[in-house]
Amino acid sequence: MKELRREPIVQRWVLISSEHPPANPKDSCPFCSGNEKDTPPEILAVRPPGGRADQWLLRVVPNVFPFFRIEGNLDRRAVGMYDEMNGIGAHELVIETPQHFQHWGTMSTEELSRVLWAYQQRFLDLRKDSRFRQVIVAKNHYSDHIRIPHQHSHIVAMPIIPKRIDEEIKGLDDYYRHKERCIFCDVLHEEIAVATRVVFESANFVAFCPYASRYPYELWVVPKNHAPDFAQISEPELKDLALNLRHVLGRLKAALHDPPYSLVVHSTPVQKFFHKGFHWHIELRPRVEERSGFEWATGFFVNFTPPEFAAKKLREAREE
Amino acid sequence: MKELRREPIVQRWVLISSEHPPANPKDSCPFCSGNEKDTPPEILAVRPPGGRADQWLLRVVPNVFPFFRIEGNLDRRAVGMYDEMNGIGAHELVIETPQHFQHWGTMSTEELSRVLWAYQQRFLDLRKDSRFRQVIVAKNHYSDHIRIPHQHSHIVAMPIIPKRIDEEIKGLDDYYRHKERCIFCDVLHEEIAVATRVVFESANFVAFCPYASRYPYELWVVPKNHAPDFAQISEPELKDLALNLRHVLGRLKAALHDPPYSLVVHSTPVQKFFHKGFHWHIELRPRVEERSGFEWATGFFVNFTPPEFAAKKLREAREE
Repeated sequence: MKELRREPIVQRWVLISSEHPPANPKDSCPFCSGNEKDTPPEILAVRPPGGRADQWLLRVVPNVFPFFRIEGNLDRRAVGMYDEMNGIGAHELVIETPQHFQHWGTMSTEELSRVLWAYQQRFLDLRKDSRFRQVIVAKNHYSDHIRIPHQHSHIVAMPIIPKRIDEEIKGLDDYYRHKERCIFCDVLHEEIAVATRVVFESANFVAFCPYASRYPYELWVVPKNHAPDFAQISEPELKDLALNLRHVLGRLKAALHDPPYSLVVHSTPVQKFFHKGFHWHIELRPRVEERSGFEWATGFFVNFTPPEFAAKKLREAREE
Repeated sequence: MKELRREPIVQRWVLISSEHPPANPKDSCPFCSGNEKDTPPEILAVRPPGGRADQWLLRVVPNVFPFFRIEGNLDRRAVGMYDEMNGIGAHELVIETPQHFQHWGTMSTEELSRVLWAYQQRFLDLRKDSRFRQVIVAKNHYSDHIRIPHQHSHIVAMPIIPKRIDEEIKGLDDYYRHKERCIFCDVLHEEIAVATRVVFESANFVAFCPYASRYPYELWVVPKNHAPDFAQISEPELKDLALNLRHVLGRLKAALHDPPYSLVVHSTPVQKFFHKGFHWHIELRPRVEERSGFEWATGFFVNFTPPEFAAKKLREAREE
């Protein structure tokens, strides 16, 4: 059973699944070179010219334990007063490197560019499916407890617009009605002018700790030029983004002793929900402290690390 | 430094504080009987008739490490393009019992009624302050890692309406415009009719696992009669709530081996934001599994424990 159910009050879609992924894989890493048979066939791969099956630089494979299943119709329906549809979607894994232990802060910008390029390819392919409204890239880097520690990221295509993206769109639209400007463009302008929260500025991107950071060392990486769609940025922009992320993650690793972190790409919804007012960006949350129940309970966040302090510490950190 | 800063895109207020509470208190528990000198003077206390200072049944004291400070003006101001005000508010602790180790699932309904009564008293008192828009009760029960394991809860009065409450109000208002009915009243009607997600029904309250539960074993306890304000429920209703919570927490403790949980009372905002369309309720989130970064990243939740399964397991659990 995989069902999308809509919470009727705040209208949040939740996937309810009775198929729990197993806690631990077998001893050998299914993502390491030589173990290609332990994953389903590749959706995308990068190999050097003439490379054998196990001589790859990057692979994209379907997740064996996906959030969604790909086959079937959405079958939107009422269940009493509630709204429900089938849990249809795509869930792929990007195996970012053949090396078991790696980190975005120590990878080469060339390797990191390849990962970002793979995201783009999958974004462009998955959005062709008319059932999907959003493609999300998310990555969890954990020092220890994660199912498979081998560097990888998730690409998820879903038939709904997730709540955070929806809230951003409402906020962007509201602001535009008042100012006829993009709020992210204004935020960038302000952050560059103030400078105290900037961690790293490259040709096309600014990485900064946002003014109202919910979490200690929260980071946003935002393109300087207004663009709704991560999948359509140019090759030079992609390389500059890799350079920026390489430095930001290198400093995060150094400053906070390789903390676990989660990272997500927020890009415009797709199909008829494509929104040219959207300003795509990356959000990053280091997991440096256990959260109390208060944030969950109220949606009100308390952050004991002012972003100005966090940004200074990250600016001054010495990368490996 | 304690500042309330508003995130400009989704308009979420965040408290940024440079005063981090210390990680661990000294060896002896400041909340145990006999250690009254280790807390600031009582705001409220319950003692048996003629009881000495250390013969109390319940105490309410100011938090020594409060989120907010109580003195001062809000001083709302612009900081560049952003919105800011002083971190003014109240932060009190309810020491629920003199016993160091206790649990709502094993306390008597009389003891639990006393805790709920104390919440009410503090709600009614704090809302007199015209600076405050919301009073929140939140409780974290952890089996192990919490600063002070002695059973206590937090009462926080704040000058803003927290995001979750604000979202509920928008949802309630939207629904009312369509149906001219309260959505919580309709949800209750549906849940009682369907019955599969109900955990415990008492004279005035229904505890159930919501249809689109974000978390495994998420629980809502909702009054059957529409009422916006927890602080104004009658004494019989309060006793019935204590009875309901006693059974629900008792079953949770038994079914999931005393899991950590967070609990919050959602009641109407106060002062000029009092909303008679609000339907107050309690939300409870057991912390039975580590959350991935996906929920944070997208606001989209994946829950591998269907609420019908969770409710059945809780219904069938045998309380101590």
